[in-house]
Amino acid sequence: MSTFNLEKKLMDLYDGNKDYEGVSGSRLAHRLGEISKIGLTTDYGSNRPGFSYEEKQAKELVMKWMREAGLEVRMDGAGNVIGRLEGKKDLPAILSGSHVDSVPNGGHFDGPLGVLSALEVVEAWKETGYQPEKPFEVVIFTDEEGARFNGGFGGSEAMLGTADIDEKQKQVDTNGLTFAEVLEEIGLTVDGYAASNRNLDNIEMFVEVHIEQGKRLEKENLPCGIVTGIAGPCWLEFTFIGEAGHAGNTPMNDRKDALVAASEFIQAVHKLPSQFSDSAVATVGKIQVEPNGVNVIPGAVTLFVDIRDIYKNTRDALIEAVIDTGKSVGKKHHVAVTSKENMRVNPVPIEEETQKLLERSFKEKGIRPYKLPSGAGHDAMVVGEKLPIAMLFVQSKDGISHNPAEWSELKDCVETVHVLKQFVESLQV
Amino acid sequence: MSTFNLEKKLMDLYDGNKDYEGVSGSRLAHRLGEISKIGLTTDYGSNRPGFSYEEKQAKELVMKWMREAGLEVRMDGAGNVIGRLEGKKDLPAILSGSHVDSVPNGGHFDGPLGVLSALEVVEAWKETGYQPEKPFEVVIFTDEEGARFNGGFGGSEAMLGTADIDEKQKQVDTNGLTFAEVLEEIGLTVDGYAASNRNLDNIEMFVEVHIEQGKRLEKENLPCGIVTGIAGPCWLEFTFIGEAGHAGNTPMNDRKDALVAASEFIQAVHKLPSQFSDSAVATVGKIQVEPNGVNVIPGAVTLFVDIRDIYKNTRDALIEAVIDTGKSVGKKHHVAVTSKENMRVNPVPIEEETQKLLERSFKEKGIRPYKLPSGAGHDAMVVGEKLPIAMLFVQSKDGISHNPAEWSELKDCVETVHVLKQFVESLQV
Repeated sequence: MSTFNLEKKLMDLYDGNKDYEGVSGSRLAHRLGEISKIGLTTDYGSNRPGFSYEEKQAKELVMKWMREAGLEVRMDGAGNVIGRLEGKKDLPAILSGSHVDSVPNGGHFDGPLGVLSALEVVEAWKETGYQPEKPFEVVIFTDEEGARFNGGFGGSEAMLGTADIDEKQKQVDTNGLTFAEVLEEIGLTVDGYAASNRNLDNIEMFVEVHIEQGKRLEKENLPCGIVTGIAGPCWLEFTFIGEAGHAGNTPMNDRKDALVAASEFIQAVHKLPSQFSDSAVATVGKIQVEPNGVNVIPGAVTLFVDIRDIYKNTRDALIEAVIDTGKSVGKKHHVAVTSKENMRVNPVPIEEETQKLLERSFKEKGIRPYKLPSGAGHDAMVVGEKLPIAMLFVQSKDGISHNPAEWSELKDCVETVHVLKQFVESLQV
Repeated sequence: MSTFNLEKKLMDLYDGNKDYEGVSGSRLAHRLGEISKIGLTTDYGSNRPGFSYEEKQAKELVMKWMREAGLEVRMDGAGNVIGRLEGKKDLPAILSGSHVDSVPNGGHFDGPLGVLSALEVVEAWKETGYQPEKPFEVVIFTDEEGARFNGGFGGSEAMLGTADIDEKQKQVDTNGLTFAEVLEEIGLTVDGYAASNRNLDNIEMFVEVHIEQGKRLEKENLPCGIVTGIAGPCWLEFTFIGEAGHAGNTPMNDRKDALVAASEFIQAVHKLPSQFSDSAVATVGKIQVEPNGVNVIPGAVTLFVDIRDIYKNTRDALIEAVIDTGKSVGKKHHVAVTSKENMRVNPVPIEEETQKLLERSFKEKGIRPYKLPSGAGHDAMVVGEKLPIAMLFVQSKDGISHNPAEWSELKDCVETVHVLKQFVESLQV
């Protein structure tokens, strides 16, 4: 373990030339490095499941930094951390942050970078003696990833008042503990969790910085980009029922091969999204074949289609097209095709006005404003159901995330902090 | 278990009108019923793995019947049972039979029907006082299915002298026993097994009766058919290496989806066989996707292609075409495709002359001669590498085999015995 040093690895590639107006690359690198040590895995990955002792440790470390930066710090009943800087005026607050939990053996940027970027804005203001008109809050949401319970977004849903407490109490985590038992382990209670919803009138907007988890910014050679919306995923499960048979004794023209039918479907699904929107995607990621024997014609195939777009109308139209394609492929191959919907989350678009403001901040920092959708869900998606949101993506190396190899260059992180700071300052008028 | 009665089930559907010239449907039904009781499973299936106590019990029961029918009975060092009826002349023998072992939870016809059909010919001759010119041997080959060791055909290979004894001694069975230990359990030895190869000059031909394990005869509404050759299977393993990625964050035009490429391949493979021969088949029966997550673009796919034909030249040309298709699909999708050959067994064609003789026997019994390939391997395939063979398929209900639901009507079995008897008699001149 002694050879892993995230701070050094970040600093070795950083020449410091983005340090200005109080923003410090070395402070950001140091803090990312300190958090990386909590729950470090043998693969040098990060293991801080939601509601774990490691997540709590990481929160406590950030709370210490928050206090040192002059923030008024509190933790709500869901374990969400709020570090508040009062504004000159008693107005609704601007919130910014992300999470510090991780998937099992995840990376060191997904989450912590968003929290520390918001804190770095506060640090910069402190150094330059700037006080915003409006209150600014740095937020750490609990359990974004949902590594222990299904779903995730446990903290942001509690704060926004959208958590289904009854449903949560029915779940057990990966260790067989109930939701109540898990909360108790870190000093929380179900009642406290349920009571952590805030008065949303006191919040103007939430801004989240997050790594892209894709390759668009890398291809565009840009430090960061403007998220246009958060795609809502829909998961469809298809079953193709054909007829199993001996691979040697069934002539080609007398088969009802469920996998041949499923293959035509997979091909067709791949070609559909571009007919609906540039940001739409559809993926068959998981497939199960029965009986899955080398010399047996597949009798049944179950497969799952993940469909996303940032626009509800095109996403929903794509869903219908995928279902129709299943039907027509089934008819063609004399294979019975059924489908069911396992999930459909509404996309969260980001307001045009907000995107324009972000564009201006990019230009002021000399960065070409590049817009891209978010295909994955984030705390901002949960907040966005109720409140205005903005979101900035930071370039990810090779698009790798949820993996120890997750990486973003420090210079890109620092440039993003500048954009975030500029944007929040632009909201003060 | 008390409710299962194969004999009664067979007889309930048989009106006896195919009983003539000494052939008895009730005897055949009784014997199939008695064998079905050995290794009967809770699903009313058959569990008599090769080299097991159950297989041995079934052999001993048949040996008793053989002796009662006046045959000279012996068991060789591989456990193969030979019941010999001397001919009027000292000429090479005609052999007929099959096996009595089963796959786990298999059916009651695959194997036993071939043995009992040959024995029924002897019974009929006994009743009518017929003695053939040439010796006739009823054979039970050990371990056709290979349920305990990979491969099967353990008995026929030993008799033909084609068994790889060294290779067998390296294997362990499903219970972790070596080949020597397994033989010892039923009173056999490796030395005895190795020494069980016969002088092939003393055999003129082997004729096997077997259920079709397909639906062609059922569709043609025929009791039995003439096998034109035994297809040699070739198993190819293909690996498609694309690029895994988040299903939401990777645009459609920037993917290297291994499953999309594999799907195009599966489609293409399905269309290839008809370009080569009417009897050629190619099947993708088994597929594994990595990482196989609903929201992850498939990074790798491994799939297996089973390719068969009764003609070596068309089968081998089809293999090349499948490999070429893999390459071109990979190129098109920017996915790395590799393949390796896991098995290639030569097809065993059946001589035109033999097929014509069989046709004549069909016509003499008033049955339309219908020819069909065997897609599966049988003991006749092993024998056919060295000696002339003939093979008769009996109609299978719904083409189901290797399953408790395996079924053939008694009238079809009895008609096949008549054809077999007629054919063997026609070989006497």
